[in-house]
Amino acid sequence: MNDERIISAIKALSIAEISKAKSGHPGIALGAATILYTLYTRHMKIDVTDEKWINRDRFVMSAGHGSSLLYAVLYMSGFNLSIKDLKKFRQIDSVTPGHPEVGTTLGVDCSSGPLGQGVATAVGMASAQKYLSEKFNGLLDYNVYVLCGEGDLMEGVSYEACSLAGNLKLNNLIVLYDCNKVTLDGTLDKSFSEDVLKRFDAMGWYTDVVLDGNNVALIDMALDKAKRIKDRPVFIEVNTTIGKDSLLEGTNKVHGSPLTKEDIRQLKDKLKIDIDLFSNLGALRREMANFIRVRNSHERKTWDVKYNAYLNSCDDVTKRFLLSLSQDKRYDVTRLFKDTIFEDDELRRINGFVMNEIADNYASFLGGSADLFSSTKTYLNNFGDFKSGNYGGKNIWFGVREHAMGAFCNGLALCGLRPFAATFLAFSDYMKPAIRMASLMNLPVCYVFTHDSVEVGEDGPTHEPVEELAMLRSIPNHYVYRPCDANEVIGSWQCILNNDKPSSLVISRSKCENINTTNPLSVKKGAYIVRKEKKKMNGIIIATGKEVKLAIDVAEKLSNKGFELRVVSMPCMRLFEEQSKNYHEEVLPIGYKTFVIERLSKFGWNKYVYNDKYIMGLDEFGYSGKSKDVLEKLKIDDESIYKRIEKLLK
Amino acid sequence: MNDERIISAIKALSIAEISKAKSGHPGIALGAATILYTLYTRHMKIDVTDEKWINRDRFVMSAGHGSSLLYAVLYMSGFNLSIKDLKKFRQIDSVTPGHPEVGTTLGVDCSSGPLGQGVATAVGMASAQKYLSEKFNGLLDYNVYVLCGEGDLMEGVSYEACSLAGNLKLNNLIVLYDCNKVTLDGTLDKSFSEDVLKRFDAMGWYTDVVLDGNNVALIDMALDKAKRIKDRPVFIEVNTTIGKDSLLEGTNKVHGSPLTKEDIRQLKDKLKIDIDLFSNLGALRREMANFIRVRNSHERKTWDVKYNAYLNSCDDVTKRFLLSLSQDKRYDVTRLFKDTIFEDDELRRINGFVMNEIADNYASFLGGSADLFSSTKTYLNNFGDFKSGNYGGKNIWFGVREHAMGAFCNGLALCGLRPFAATFLAFSDYMKPAIRMASLMNLPVCYVFTHDSVEVGEDGPTHEPVEELAMLRSIPNHYVYRPCDANEVIGSWQCILNNDKPSSLVISRSKCENINTTNPLSVKKGAYIVRKEKKKMNGIIIATGKEVKLAIDVAEKLSNKGFELRVVSMPCMRLFEEQSKNYHEEVLPIGYKTFVIERLSKFGWNKYVYNDKYIMGLDEFGYSGKSKDVLEKLKIDDESIYKRIEKLLK
Repeated sequence: MNDERIISAIKALSIAEISKAKSGHPGIALGAATILYTLYTRHMKIDVTDEKWINRDRFVMSAGHGSSLLYAVLYMSGFNLSIKDLKKFRQIDSVTPGHPEVGTTLGVDCSSGPLGQGVATAVGMASAQKYLSEKFNGLLDYNVYVLCGEGDLMEGVSYEACSLAGNLKLNNLIVLYDCNKVTLDGTLDKSFSEDVLKRFDAMGWYTDVVLDGNNVALIDMALDKAKRIKDRPVFIEVNTTIGKDSLLEGTNKVHGSPLTKEDIRQLKDKLKIDIDLFSNLGALRREMANFIRVRNSHERKTWDVKYNAYLNSCDDVTKRFLLSLSQDKRYDVTRLFKDTIFEDDELRRINGFVMNEIADNYASFLGGSADLFSSTKTYLNNFGDFKSGNYGGKNIWFGVREHAMGAFCNGLALCGLRPFAATFLAFSDYMKPAIRMASLMNLPVCYVFTHDSVEVGEDGPTHEPVEELAMLRSIPNHYVYRPCDANEVIGSWQCILNNDKPSSLVISRSKCENINTTNPLSVKKGAYIVRKEKKKMNGIIIATGKEVKLAIDVAEKLSNKGFELRVVSMPCMRLFEEQSKNYHEEVLPIGYKTFVIERLSKFGWNKYVYNDKYIMGLDEFGYSGKSKDVLEKLKIDDESIYKRIEKLLK
Repeated sequence: MNDERIISAIKALSIAEISKAKSGHPGIALGAATILYTLYTRHMKIDVTDEKWINRDRFVMSAGHGSSLLYAVLYMSGFNLSIKDLKKFRQIDSVTPGHPEVGTTLGVDCSSGPLGQGVATAVGMASAQKYLSEKFNGLLDYNVYVLCGEGDLMEGVSYEACSLAGNLKLNNLIVLYDCNKVTLDGTLDKSFSEDVLKRFDAMGWYTDVVLDGNNVALIDMALDKAKRIKDRPVFIEVNTTIGKDSLLEGTNKVHGSPLTKEDIRQLKDKLKIDIDLFSNLGALRREMANFIRVRNSHERKTWDVKYNAYLNSCDDVTKRFLLSLSQDKRYDVTRLFKDTIFEDDELRRINGFVMNEIADNYASFLGGSADLFSSTKTYLNNFGDFKSGNYGGKNIWFGVREHAMGAFCNGLALCGLRPFAATFLAFSDYMKPAIRMASLMNLPVCYVFTHDSVEVGEDGPTHEPVEELAMLRSIPNHYVYRPCDANEVIGSWQCILNNDKPSSLVISRSKCENINTTNPLSVKKGAYIVRKEKKKMNGIIIATGKEVKLAIDVAEKLSNKGFELRVVSMPCMRLFEEQSKNYHEEVLPIGYKTFVIERLSKFGWNKYVYNDKYIMGLDEFGYSGKSKDVLEKLKIDDESIYKRIEKLLK
């Protein structure tokens, strides 16, 4: 195979895409083309005719601005992409968007997102393989490769995840660091002067250097060696030149703007190829694609035999789990609890019990906590810890690394699992970027957030959520549940696990009495009546979580005073929004005084209550003190709420 | 001085606080008491009678759950805290909250917040000293000390900040790592197995180890040595035992729950002190406080002389700046531009111009970008880069580290500066935890977020903000500005710099025509009329940012069709909320059809518009494509908005 000519073709294609789009990043395309070429031709275990093959190697382009390069490589590798697609780079409705998007482009295993996310997600993908391999007796043995740049390495989320990867000894993870010493704004030394290899060494990684990133043989050798490392993840620094062969090579000017015509002209000469016309590439593409096909075909065939044999010999539960990786899976959570009687208890404990039952019944369900198993009560008792030597364990010890936990779980979900990530609601702030990525990728990750209001108390305002619930509710494509008792916890999980999108489950630390009018099946409607007015209605209280019981109590007390109130529990605002207009009117008829009780920010509740006075919530942070005292100081204690509603009814 | 007895007293006090509160963290109190004792008695340059002394050494308790220990040490050091205060530990309205809060407790220099924030904030505090020292000819030469635990080090934000500290060679920053190898959930090795010293070495830090964290002399020597290191920050690993001398010592069980009575009883014996009664400490307190006073008094006196001499000799501008560190400062931004005529231009460029003028006129104004100077246009041209060898520079190269940038700026603000932090609005997600801390601490940090809507276009949904504006608006005590043209940019800065609270300034990347009805002075009202209806009004359009011009255009077009619309620009929702009811009614009279145009999430706008149909915004993520195509696909292009409003008016 003519490496040099094909690499030139890849560079040419990539630059042509950017030129056509008048937008894109030539620097990485010219600098890192040889890396991707070597990876895809010599190492990636793929089948371009079955891009969802569950045992394919995964590739994550963490430096997502290198999308034009990735598309060029995927095209040349024989994936079902056309020159027409490449010509529509960065255009609306194309399969070649500005940053790689999973589900949009065949061969793209992960949406890149802002810098750092890709690296961290890849750690989760590598962990998924470890778990699955353990469950299926080694059947799944794929590697996860990452291309990242300096920006990725500066982001805290990549550090967190890589530190964890070192702890977990993920030997199937190989990170290629495109080391060009230039960032968007200038030379790297202005903001970054680490000994990166030493840092990765300190984090338990095997490290290596490729001195010349334009040398296929050197990159190939490093990857060969990396695959032989059996006790840790591998980090390979590949020294490259940003914008190689451009007139601006080696400078930040070539990072993010299309090349000039003059530059393209001289580049053409250097690369000995026509890079304007997206043409004359057929033969080279066939050559590269064929090379990849031949290298992989035997392995694919062998694996298929192995897979079928395994499928025929394993037990039914294992079989269902294996098949679920490539097809939809339904979770019948409600059924698990049809005979269970729940005592009144802290809601976090009830939720922990429910999660344990789910874990016992569904192999795809696993997760962990950012050093708060003890407080979130999310430890899965019948499984051990996920760790080197016991990758079949279901409890992932994320350490105090909320952000990486989020991205890691995205990686698990990308590989067919149903992960959860648990911490306090106040710390959801740390995870927002990863939650957004899950929402963008349609990944069924569940974030379990306990300690869900200022009732946290003693730990004070930095640990008391206020605006976090609004933040989560504002994320498109994301479902937020705040159940009020055991029934609604079960109902929430039923919805969460049967939705292919991400969810947050917001859970009280405190005791929540079981309410006899709640119903697991009603959660899917988002909101429903838990106290029907007895006669002509004077108003409606909407409440969520622990505050539902309070709302009912308030309504009962006011009923004695002649005010008849309906109480609506709204465990999931978004699900309610998705119901019919008829249902909306049935539950929340217009023309009645409507109140909200939720001991968090009022922000977002004006959808149901125009006047802020009718919202028993917060515009301010909490305080350190006993729960009761904090609520009183904020004037949202039981008594204050009762009195305010009574006054507003008069 | 009787070290051992006083350390026992500190431990006793700390445990007594926790016992009384029935809440708190004994593990760190018993484990790290000797570290804090040694630091405060032997090293901290403080004046307990003037706890805001601008040249005091700063201490950041990044492991904020050790608050009871900190309060005990502050009490024993002679700060104006009483036993009564300690008895009210974690109670409402006390000066001893669950986690240290700046402004609440004398001697507390920084609110700790969630793990990691303290370390990162300290990097900013150390940088502030470097900048101020340069400006005042070495007058300010304080050190910044940090106590952190494993949790702090696992958090990405601390990594980001420490990597930057290494790059900046901050030799006045000394981090003491309370290394007890235990986390809340269990032993450290379950989630963290780094060679931490090697990592810090790789990041350009000087590292050292204290083998016995109970040995005053060893800690003292390490600190002495640390202060002599002149070319880099210092990281000292101090080996301790969590819950030292408790029955649960060395285990996670002693981390976060009060000790049992039995445990306290045996601890009393070991410490040879009464730890129930908060008593008999007077003599020991006098001893420790006196020791500290004597050690510091000469230095304080000498410094005062130096300060006064400097104040009398320096120029007026320098004098004003120096005085501003200890008193309020007003910024007259509007005046700077009274004769400036702004051409129509990209709003980010106009904002960059305004920021440069402010920087030229106010020494306290500095900041930087997370590798997006080039795109946010926030480089301050007349000052160099802030770096080793030029700490007087005003441009901080944060690298691709948004989260640390936020916390770093909090540190600058804590030391009297007026920092800004610039990146894309989509990446504000990465900074949320630090923004929340600024809001909790009342710090006047300004976050400059450009690329403020889905108009970002080609880079695609991961780079296009949607729900970020709602997220920022939902943060209590935080002011969000989205100006529509040069006038409003000036007005926003006028408000931002004269408010002691944090702000976000959200700026369009695109060209925004100057509107002849806008006014810098109106921004402080939050919202005002920019197009008055010509006759009987048919409705009101509220718009922000670039969409204000569109709203006016729509109103003009509809006026020709017989619909008279008022247009209200709302650069700051919170400021508008703070206006009188009269003003609300004047600007937004009730009873009219009201529309909103803002090309971001609808979330939060129901405050002004009940029906979502009247909000020209988004419930979904953006796409990759040309701006125009993205807007069309989302049905929020100019034409679609015009037609929707026309239809709704009919």
